[in-house]
Amino acid sequence: MKKLSVIGIGAGDPDHLTMQAVKALNLVDVFFLMDKGPAKDKLLDLRRDICRRYIVDHPYRFVETHSPERQRNDLDYTISVEALNRAKQDTFERLINEELSDGERGGFLVWGDPALYDSTLRILQAILDSGRCAFEYDVIPGITSVQALAARHKVPLNDIGGSLEITTGRRLAAGQLGDAGSVVVMLDAEDAYRQVSDPDTHIYWGAYVGTPGEQLIAGRLGDVADDIERTRKAARQVNGWIMDTYLLRKR
Amino acid sequence: MKKLSVIGIGAGDPDHLTMQAVKALNLVDVFFLMDKGPAKDKLLDLRRDICRRYIVDHPYRFVETHSPERQRNDLDYTISVEALNRAKQDTFERLINEELSDGERGGFLVWGDPALYDSTLRILQAILDSGRCAFEYDVIPGITSVQALAARHKVPLNDIGGSLEITTGRRLAAGQLGDAGSVVVMLDAEDAYRQVSDPDTHIYWGAYVGTPGEQLIAGRLGDVADDIERTRKAARQVNGWIMDTYLLRKR
Repeated sequence: MKKLSVIGIGAGDPDHLTMQAVKALNLVDVFFLMDKGPAKDKLLDLRRDICRRYIVDHPYRFVETHSPERQRNDLDYTISVEALNRAKQDTFERLINEELSDGERGGFLVWGDPALYDSTLRILQAILDSGRCAFEYDVIPGITSVQALAARHKVPLNDIGGSLEITTGRRLAAGQLGDAGSVVVMLDAEDAYRQVSDPDTHIYWGAYVGTPGEQLIAGRLGDVADDIERTRKAARQVNGWIMDTYLLRKR
Repeated sequence: MKKLSVIGIGAGDPDHLTMQAVKALNLVDVFFLMDKGPAKDKLLDLRRDICRRYIVDHPYRFVETHSPERQRNDLDYTISVEALNRAKQDTFERLINEELSDGERGGFLVWGDPALYDSTLRILQAILDSGRCAFEYDVIPGITSVQALAARHKVPLNDIGGSLEITTGRRLAAGQLGDAGSVVVMLDAEDAYRQVSDPDTHIYWGAYVGTPGEQLIAGRLGDVADDIERTRKAARQVNGWIMDTYLLRKR
């Protein structure tokens, strides 16, 4: 039987790895690397660094592959992600069939936690459901950028007895917010915090949290929104990509 | 200057500790232990086990103290938690003033993540704001029971592009749910999943996740609700306490 481990590796700081993740890394024979886009080289380097740092006396190899990209034209977002996931499914099937021998363990290193805004679990389940590949797999949770953000700002994610909504920049921009007192926004490509009408909302923003390039801004949205927008734009220009998250606390 | 570290230690499995948490443990001189209720002894043992396992060549001591308890009479929930936090604040102030010397570091070991449904950060900030104690502190994120639950069920927390609400059993029972497609419920003392009207909702439930006593049930709510209720009741009787969480996925 082939085996797979889907390992959460935290938000960018190699110290985010759990003992469970380190143990899992040390059982993997083949790591599948599939980053893409402008952050590709940086993220691949971080994954290699994590393996070098934590794997002791266990031989392993990397298999790098081209990752399919989402079509960003006029398609509905969910439809385009589903199409992307089918393309990824083909890639994963090929990797498992061609690059992994019986009895070996393959590893997927996922930023943050595999359960939050990542498609690996969904794709592996779809492959199993299709019956075209057979394997066992396990999942190792990891520190998310949400948790790294809260820790660096030293701020609770929820109000006392209140609820927390974790959502996307796309949904915030479309006005699809629930009534949770605290909202975390991920994957915001277009400054969706600009859409929040109450300037007394408090924002805790962070980019590259837990890495040497970390940037943090907090304050009343009406006071700091311009600063955040400027900082994002500059960071994107310097690094070619940005990985940021924020917490909004309604008043 | 006195220093404090608020360290997330995960959901019950000592392997949930991050490298960052292990490093932080090894800088702490005094651990403040304040568990309460029926789970007290078990949780204190787990904390001592974590320290024994991960601290190398650094002397440390434990200070155990009586933890104030929330008044469970007819008070409003938020008011009773605020009163509890004021009582805890007095306890924390006394600990910092009397049990920690200048230059020493105190440690709070928090189950899950200090940012999610835990009052330590709120209390420390209130003490600093009051000006009655001075200290520096840092916060180390930890794996939450939410993440452990999702990993064990191998299930994503969110739908594609969808949002996730993390809330309490109290809020679910009161019908205070947003429109997120996925809802995680924590701190449910009274089988609030019984209040969900659609029996086609899918539930992923887990108790003592990541520990030897782990129990997992998943399925259509209409099919498994009775089983979950029976399992919870039996677990509470056997162990004297229960620590459980569940994910609801709307259809």
